[in-house]
Amino acid sequence: MPLKTSTWFILFLNIYLISASDPDASQDFCIPRSEFSSIFLSCKNSSLATVEDFVFSGIKSSKNLNKTNRFSSIPVTSTVFPGLNTLGMSFVRADFEAGGINVPHYHPRATEIAYVLEGKIYSGFVDSSNRVYAKVIEKGEVMVFPKGLMHFQMNVGDSIATILGSFNSQNPGLVKIPSAVFGSGIKDELLVKAFGLSDKVLDKLRKQFT
Amino acid sequence: MPLKTSTWFILFLNIYLISASDPDASQDFCIPRSEFSSIFLSCKNSSLATVEDFVFSGIKSSKNLNKTNRFSSIPVTSTVFPGLNTLGMSFVRADFEAGGINVPHYHPRATEIAYVLEGKIYSGFVDSSNRVYAKVIEKGEVMVFPKGLMHFQMNVGDSIATILGSFNSQNPGLVKIPSAVFGSGIKDELLVKAFGLSDKVLDKLRKQFT
Amino acid sequence: MPLKTSTWFILFLNIYLISASDPDASQDFCIPRSEFSSIFLSCKNSSLATVEDFVFSGIKSSKNLNKTNRFSSIPVTSTVFPGLNTLGMSFVRADFEAGGINVPHYHPRATEIAYVLEGKIYSGFVDSSNRVYAKVIEKGEVMVFPKGLMHFQMNVGDSIATILGSFNSQNPGLVKIPSAVFGSGIKDELLVKAFGLSDKVLDKLRKQFT
Amino acid sequence: MPLKTSTWFILFLNIYLISASDPDASQDFCIPRSEFSSIFLSCKNSSLATVEDFVFSGIKSSKNLNKTNRFSSIPVTSTVFPGLNTLGMSFVRADFEAGGINVPHYHPRATEIAYVLEGKIYSGFVDSSNRVYAKVIEKGEVMVFPKGLMHFQMNVGDSIATILGSFNSQNPGLVKIPSAVFGSGIKDELLVKAFGLSDKVLDKLRKQFT
Amino acid sequence: MPLKTSTWFILFLNIYLISASDPDASQDFCIPRSEFSSIFLSCKNSSLATVEDFVFSGIKSSKNLNKTNRFSSIPVTSTVFPGLNTLGMSFVRADFEAGGINVPHYHPRATEIAYVLEGKIYSGFVDSSNRVYAKVIEKGEVMVFPKGLMHFQMNVGDSIATILGSFNSQNPGLVKIPSAVFGSGIKDELLVKAFGLSDKVLDKLRKQFT
Amino acid sequence: MPLKTSTWFILFLNIYLISASDPDASQDFCIPRSEFSSIFLSCKNSSLATVEDFVFSGIKSSKNLNKTNRFSSIPVTSTVFPGLNTLGMSFVRADFEAGGINVPHYHPRATEIAYVLEGKIYSGFVDSSNRVYAKVIEKGEVMVFPKGLMHFQMNVGDSIATILGSFNSQNPGLVKIPSAVFGSGIKDELLVKAFGLSDKVLDKLRKQFT
Repeated sequence: MPLKTSTWFILFLNIYLISASDPDASQDFCIPRSEFSSIFLSCKNSSLATVEDFVFSGIKSSKNLNKTNRFSSIPVTSTVFPGLNTLGMSFVRADFEAGGINVPHYHPRATEIAYVLEGKIYSGFVDSSNRVYAKVIEKGEVMVFPKGLMHFQMNVGDSIATILGSFNSQNPGLVKIPSAVFGSGIKDELLVKAFGLSDKVLDKLRKQFT
Repeated sequence: MPLKTSTWFILFLNIYLISASDPDASQDFCIPRSEFSSIFLSCKNSSLATVEDFVFSGIKSSKNLNKTNRFSSIPVTSTVFPGLNTLGMSFVRADFEAGGINVPHYHPRATEIAYVLEGKIYSGFVDSSNRVYAKVIEKGEVMVFPKGLMHFQMNVGDSIATILGSFNSQNPGLVKIPSAVFGSGIKDELLVKAFGLSDKVLDKLRKQFT
Repeated sequence: MPLKTSTWFILFLNIYLISASDPDASQDFCIPRSEFSSIFLSCKNSSLATVEDFVFSGIKSSKNLNKTNRFSSIPVTSTVFPGLNTLGMSFVRADFEAGGINVPHYHPRATEIAYVLEGKIYSGFVDSSNRVYAKVIEKGEVMVFPKGLMHFQMNVGDSIATILGSFNSQNPGLVKIPSAVFGSGIKDELLVKAFGLSDKVLDKLRKQFT
Repeated sequence: MPLKTSTWFILFLNIYLISASDPDASQDFCIPRSEFSSIFLSCKNSSLATVEDFVFSGIKSSKNLNKTNRFSSIPVTSTVFPGLNTLGMSFVRADFEAGGINVPHYHPRATEIAYVLEGKIYSGFVDSSNRVYAKVIEKGEVMVFPKGLMHFQMNVGDSIATILGSFNSQNPGLVKIPSAVFGSGIKDELLVKAFGLSDKVLDKLRKQFT
Repeated sequence: MPLKTSTWFILFLNIYLISASDPDASQDFCIPRSEFSSIFLSCKNSSLATVEDFVFSGIKSSKNLNKTNRFSSIPVTSTVFPGLNTLGMSFVRADFEAGGINVPHYHPRATEIAYVLEGKIYSGFVDSSNRVYAKVIEKGEVMVFPKGLMHFQMNVGDSIATILGSFNSQNPGLVKIPSAVFGSGIKDELLVKAFGLSDKVLDKLRKQFT
Repeated sequence: MPLKTSTWFILFLNIYLISASDPDASQDFCIPRSEFSSIFLSCKNSSLATVEDFVFSGIKSSKNLNKTNRFSSIPVTSTVFPGLNTLGMSFVRADFEAGGINVPHYHPRATEIAYVLEGKIYSGFVDSSNRVYAKVIEKGEVMVFPKGLMHFQMNVGDSIATILGSFNSQNPGLVKIPSAVFGSGIKDELLVKAFGLSDKVLDKLRKQFT
């Protein structure tokens, strides 16, 4: 029995990028059809692509900063910059007020190259044997964060600091440790044991990140 | 001027697996030469490989359990099971006493399939939008942890519980959140801000995981 | 001229997994929409995924054994365990009565790690220079079968034997040599020449495997 | 509000192969549904595939030669030979009249192996340090052009020459230098500076390749 | 204690290609140093590469045919054509006398494109649901054998037939079913059960393929 | 007969990066041993790695500009920034005087994301159907150049312009069209035919780029 067209509609609004994994695509590029921007299953006929599809102007300035961390970021993936679709890269602009931090986090699917556009930033990562590699980097310096390793940053200067990060995946993913651990709803008993925390402290952490 | 043979020796003892990334290898297999087990640069002539190179007997029983977490694991990669070298897989046996936990952790380079050999285990992972997927799984059940996502386990039964995990990388890597965050030496100021902890609590956590 | 909705329906029922090849996916996971389980083109909106999507309970016990070989297996791919979709892994439970065999076969798209859950099994593989690597492995032991190489098993104990196999592909494929060679309809003349068989023996083999 | 079926139709005619990148496919093969040959999103139900899907007869003879270069080629990708879809290979037949040339070009997504079916051909490529590797190759000889490097050919014999090229991508892509540089519409000022050409010569080149 | 130079020598003669798996290499090419042709660990300084490294002349004519099958083949991998190293391709020339056969076999690591240079050849493969795809192909026709699937050929014409096969791996591997199954030393009991053969017939097959 | 140590020395100085292709590495990172910086076969023992290995300070300012094109670039690969080794990324800083150009070129092994640090730049690429995608981009804007496609830039402002480019390969490669075509030594006859140039003009071009 044929489904109703309306049903198809629901089907399509829920189609997500299954298969644009990050190996070589097998065409020059694939601009998703704008009228189905949430559906990365269909490319515009390449003759309809324009230069605008390959240029992005949305990171000229920063977003409003997050009150708590005095930090803001603008991640740019194929969702907002369709030209990136199937090309295996994406990027991010991150801004820090004096003292602002980018909490410990990692990208499950990419290595990151971070270039300091402005300011002095304490920046580092932890390898899988728990050694930290961290130092203050300045305007024009570059730090690399190996794929999947936890990293973090803090503006240690007295003015705004800005970083441009590039990734070798079109969708690197982002796991922020504080909220993933304390804000996701893992059983209290497990967290209390894992971190050796009192219920009181755990409770405080939960409230903060949920 | 030629180097001294002794210098070469040093060179070799420090050679590690650079390039056995996890795509198809281009030979059937590659058994590292046992006399250089820390050097995965050279395969035994394949005519010298034996069936013993492809069989592993080291996870028939558990190791001594770690006092704190009442948990122990035996990771099996090509370092201890040379036959795995270049084949893109590895595995692990994990044992939990009643109440024992496997702290929140992730594998930067692999998806994991966990099969419950024995017991009742609260098991779950957190996706990159901070949603937790967790439940109690029992003997004979299987849970999958997508590549790079943070996951955790706790024995909620009243006897020993055991899991067999398989990975789609010959070296999945392991990042344990508590020690990576609090035991690696990240600047106090950053951690205090990131987790909203008092210096006192942070100090306690540091001691615990360093 | 627009097609009828009914035609679309046919289109969709014939859509198969083209592109979920086994490299990194570019999202955390992709649960196929259950109402189109034969169509791996669309993921559930990830907010609709539940822990049940990532847990599988179908291999707690064995299936009925195949009369001839006193062997049965339950292959678990994303077709029956949707959570595996795009994650690059799958697994299988295999049960053997005393004397039961798993005929020589290979998986075109994966390496296999076989863990003995129960029993004593003569297990081995053949490399591409026709050398066999085989021995009897027991409960708790693991054997690895390199990608694409022919392997086989036989229960040499006097009770049920069970194996858990894991694969580094979400769809490893399976080619059983006896039926592929003698049951697929290859020209008699070619088979007679290739194996140096009499027409009579070939005829017997054909009947058996068709 | 549901879209009209007619709209869907447009959607589908514009769906292109996004994701059949060249890693292992996760099924044996995928024959695109012929009634949607421009839509490589759906495979025929494999039970409907026939041997004809895997055999190609379209390069038994050459096409008409291009007047200017006395050269013609028949590229064979999954567009004309559906059986190649997802298998990571394609090929080409190239014919040269005496003196005919295949202009400097490259394939962004594949290495090429060129086998001389007939004739004597001056053939070569340039590596990324601008060194040329070129010589005359004859019937039965093979030359390899590494992935992405510029290469070229000229029939230096006095009769027809023919080459069979194979690629390790199902869609290698083709960039012909003369038309890409002078026929695509790059700003005159840039080309004049890049090649040190007079406007007059540039103008002549433009006309020729546009 | 430093090893003796002589020991190193042994080390090196046993180094094989571990890591040149088939993804993109990260240089234009890598010509193995000829004085260590069995050691694919070191590339010639690229400035020492010559055009001869990229041209192969060894398949202009056939080898002596194998008595039994009236068949011969010349596989060309980086072992004999060093220029192929790290480029992800290789090829083969196969010659058949009238009635000659290429026994059922498969390549664990590559798809094959077979082009008929001469003659009429019954050619086919079997998919993983045991369906055969076979027909007679003629001069100028092409058949594709999907990665890892079993295939076979027989010259059904009355003169020599020749095929040129190309692979998308630098080392596709080759498993010949008759010798892998009956010539490798798999336990008799298992083979008797797997194929339903009498000990007498099995014995005959063993003799033939060992 | 053992080789002399001195011979080994020669061997090692000519070892290049064969196998660090760009898929996932199978360790966190691999810092090449500095005393053998031209040998990417050996990683420092990871316990000897320091944060300095992961920070690069060499692109804070530009190099001297090239007279002809009023352009300079500083490519940063693992050769100068060892921490990038096996991580699948690299980057470049490019500076343009007013009117300066980056001649048409392509990277055989990577997609590039170009971020404008300063100035107004006419920037574009040509796809494999010879369509150009070009426009003037300004400070803070980003343009993506799909893998393997020819691209180019010109400073159309009246002051210095600077670009930061990131690549998804540790060694993207660089083919500059003018010198690859006219400076590499391709036979005159072929170039004359391919571009329809007079011998006089060709001669001029040759001189310029050799």
